[in-house]
Amino acid sequence: MTDLRELSIDDIESLSVGAWILGTGGGGSSYLGLLNMRALYAEGYRVSLMQPADLADDDWVAAVSNMGAPLVGQERLTDSRTIARAVDLMERHTGYRFRGIMALEIGGGNSIQPLMAAAHLGRPVIDADMMGRAYPEAQMTSVAVGDLKPYPLSTVDCRGLESVVEKVPTWKWMERVSRKICVEYGSIASTCKAPRTGREVKDWGIHGTTTKAIEIGHAVREAQRRHEDPIAAILSVEPGKVLYRGKVMDVERRATEGFLRGRTRFDGIDEWKSTSMELAFQNEWIVAWQDGEPIAMSPDLICVLDSVTGEAVGTETIRYGQRVTVIALPCPPVFMTPKGLQHVGPRAFNYDIEFKSVFA
Amino acid sequence: MTDLRELSIDDIESLSVGAWILGTGGGGSSYLGLLNMRALYAEGYRVSLMQPADLADDDWVAAVSNMGAPLVGQERLTDSRTIARAVDLMERHTGYRFRGIMALEIGGGNSIQPLMAAAHLGRPVIDADMMGRAYPEAQMTSVAVGDLKPYPLSTVDCRGLESVVEKVPTWKWMERVSRKICVEYGSIASTCKAPRTGREVKDWGIHGTTTKAIEIGHAVREAQRRHEDPIAAILSVEPGKVLYRGKVMDVERRATEGFLRGRTRFDGIDEWKSTSMELAFQNEWIVAWQDGEPIAMSPDLICVLDSVTGEAVGTETIRYGQRVTVIALPCPPVFMTPKGLQHVGPRAFNYDIEFKSVFA
Repeated sequence: MTDLRELSIDDIESLSVGAWILGTGGGGSSYLGLLNMRALYAEGYRVSLMQPADLADDDWVAAVSNMGAPLVGQERLTDSRTIARAVDLMERHTGYRFRGIMALEIGGGNSIQPLMAAAHLGRPVIDADMMGRAYPEAQMTSVAVGDLKPYPLSTVDCRGLESVVEKVPTWKWMERVSRKICVEYGSIASTCKAPRTGREVKDWGIHGTTTKAIEIGHAVREAQRRHEDPIAAILSVEPGKVLYRGKVMDVERRATEGFLRGRTRFDGIDEWKSTSMELAFQNEWIVAWQDGEPIAMSPDLICVLDSVTGEAVGTETIRYGQRVTVIALPCPPVFMTPKGLQHVGPRAFNYDIEFKSVFA
Repeated sequence: MTDLRELSIDDIESLSVGAWILGTGGGGSSYLGLLNMRALYAEGYRVSLMQPADLADDDWVAAVSNMGAPLVGQERLTDSRTIARAVDLMERHTGYRFRGIMALEIGGGNSIQPLMAAAHLGRPVIDADMMGRAYPEAQMTSVAVGDLKPYPLSTVDCRGLESVVEKVPTWKWMERVSRKICVEYGSIASTCKAPRTGREVKDWGIHGTTTKAIEIGHAVREAQRRHEDPIAAILSVEPGKVLYRGKVMDVERRATEGFLRGRTRFDGIDEWKSTSMELAFQNEWIVAWQDGEPIAMSPDLICVLDSVTGEAVGTETIRYGQRVTVIALPCPPVFMTPKGLQHVGPRAFNYDIEFKSVFA
C-alpha cells in the first residue's frame, strides 16, 4: 500500500509562495500556476503527493517543466492541459506509463507544473525535484551531476506543436537543441524531461522539496496573517541565515542568449547601514558580494525577500527603492561534491571564485 | 511477386548527373552521394528500385532528405549511415517497418540519400519523389499540395543528435521547427519525413523520377563520351525547350534566413546575341526574365547547364564568364493546379507574377 497525501488548495497556495522563495530570484512567478490549480480544484480535480521511497525501482517517473523566457510565460498564459500533453507525448514516444510526475525544479512556477499534469492525467506528484531550487540550464540538475541519460525530451506548445529530442551526446547538447526548439515555438514550451526510473529518483532525486516549499510558504502566510515577521518565520522552518538588509539602489538587466542576466546593488540598513551589497544573476541570483567580497554563491541558495511581506523578489521584477532582506538557505548535498560544483558552482557561471558555503 | 530492378553503379553515376540537372540550380551536388555509393558498392552493397504501383495500400514508405545549407553539406562530408539512422529513428518512434525508401526531392544530392539508406537497411528504393525537382521549403511538395499529414519528422546528425518533430499545425510550421533544429545541429541534418502509406505514394507521389534522372544523366554521359551535343541529348529524352544561350555577366548572392538568395545576369550569344536574361533564385532558379519580361518561372523547371558538358550549374557555384544554356523542362501536373501554384508558383516566392507555363 502506498501512502498518498491529497493536497488541499491551501497547501497549493503555500506551495506557490514557498516555491517562489526557493526560486532564488528565478523560475518565474508561481502565481499563474496557482490560478490554474484553483480553477482545476473548483472543477473537482484533486492532486496527491507520493513519497519517492514508495516508488518501485522499475517504475517510470516523468519530470516536467516549462522552458523559456519568464516574461513570455507571463504573457502567454498557461493552459494546464499543455504540460499534460508533454507527458502524454512522452508516453506515446517511449511506450512507458508513468507512475507519477515530478518537478524538474521546485523553484518558481515550475513547482506547479507537475500538479497540473497530475490533475489531468490522474497520477500522483512525486515529492522531489532535481534542483532543490531553480537553475537556468538543463545540465544544472542532480541527475546531470549523476551522469544519468539526458534524453529523450518532449516539447509541446499551446498551438499543437510537438517535438521529441530523442538523443544527444551530452546534457549541454540537450540544453542547446531543446532551447532552440523552445525559441522557435515562441520562447515558451512545456517539456517532459528524460524519464527516470523509480530507482534513479530514489538515488538522485532531491527528496521532500514539494513538502519543503509548502512548509516555507505556510510559515510566511501564517506570519502575514498574524502580522509577525515573515523572515523569522522562514528561518524557524529552514536552517537559513540572514545575509543583509537594505534598499535596492540600482538594477542592470539585459536579455542575452535566452537568459536574463544582470546585477543589482543595495544600500544597507540596520546593522548593515555602512555596507553595500551587490548581486549578480543569470535568471537566478548567483553570487553576492558585500563591500566587494563574495560572501554567498551558488549552489547555496541566495533568496531576496520583500522585508515586509517575506515574499520572493524576482530578478525580472526587482526595482529601485524596494526594501529587501537577503537570506541564504543550504543547498542539496549533491551539489557540494566536486562534480556537483562543476555543474552549478560559481565557475559554471563564469565567476572565477572558489566555492565557500555560507554554512561551512 | 514484385519486380525489383537492381541498380548498377553506372545507373547511379547517371542518376548523379541527371539529378543535378533536375535540381534546377539547387539541391546541392550529388557528387558526394555518388562517392558514398561507389564505396558501398565496392563493399558489396546493392540497391534495387521498386515501382510505386507495386506498393500495397497499407505499406509504409520513408521519405528522406538532407536538410540544411548546401555549402555546409560539402564541408561536413556525408557518412552514408547517417541517413539510415534517420529512417531507423522513425521506425523506432512510430513502430512501423518501412517497405521502401523514397526521395523527398529528386533534384541534386537528395536523389542519392534514399539509396544510401536503402543500402544499409536492405530495402528497395521507390521510383518516385515529392517534388520532381528540388525546392527550398518543406511545404513545397506534392504531399503538402495534397494536404497529407506533415508529421512526424526525424532528424539526426553525425554526432549522434536525434530529434523527432511529432506534431505541427501546418507544413509551414514543420518547415520552421525542423529548420531551427537543423541550424542548431550545425546547419546540416539528415531527415526522415512524415511516413507515407503505399496508397498515398500511389496517389500523391511523383512517379518514375529516379528512372527519369537516370535517363537524363545517361543521355548526357553518352553524348559526352561521343563528343556530341549534351543539351540536344537531354532534349531527346525529355520534352524540354531551350530558352537562352549566353555568358554569365553578373552574380549577386546572399545567404539569408538559411537560404541562398540572389540574381544572375547573362549576355546572349547566337540567336540571343542582342538580348539579356536575368534569373532570380532561392536555392533553386525561380524566375527567368528576358529583356525584363518574365519568360519562365516556377513550377516549370528552369535548368542552367554548362553549354559544353551539359552538366548542371548550381546557384551556389555559378560564376562570371561561364558559358551556359538555359532550358525549361515541364513540371509535374500536381503543381499546375490552383492549389499547387499556391505552394510553388511565383507568388509563393514573393514574385507578383501570374504563372504562365513555357509549355502552354
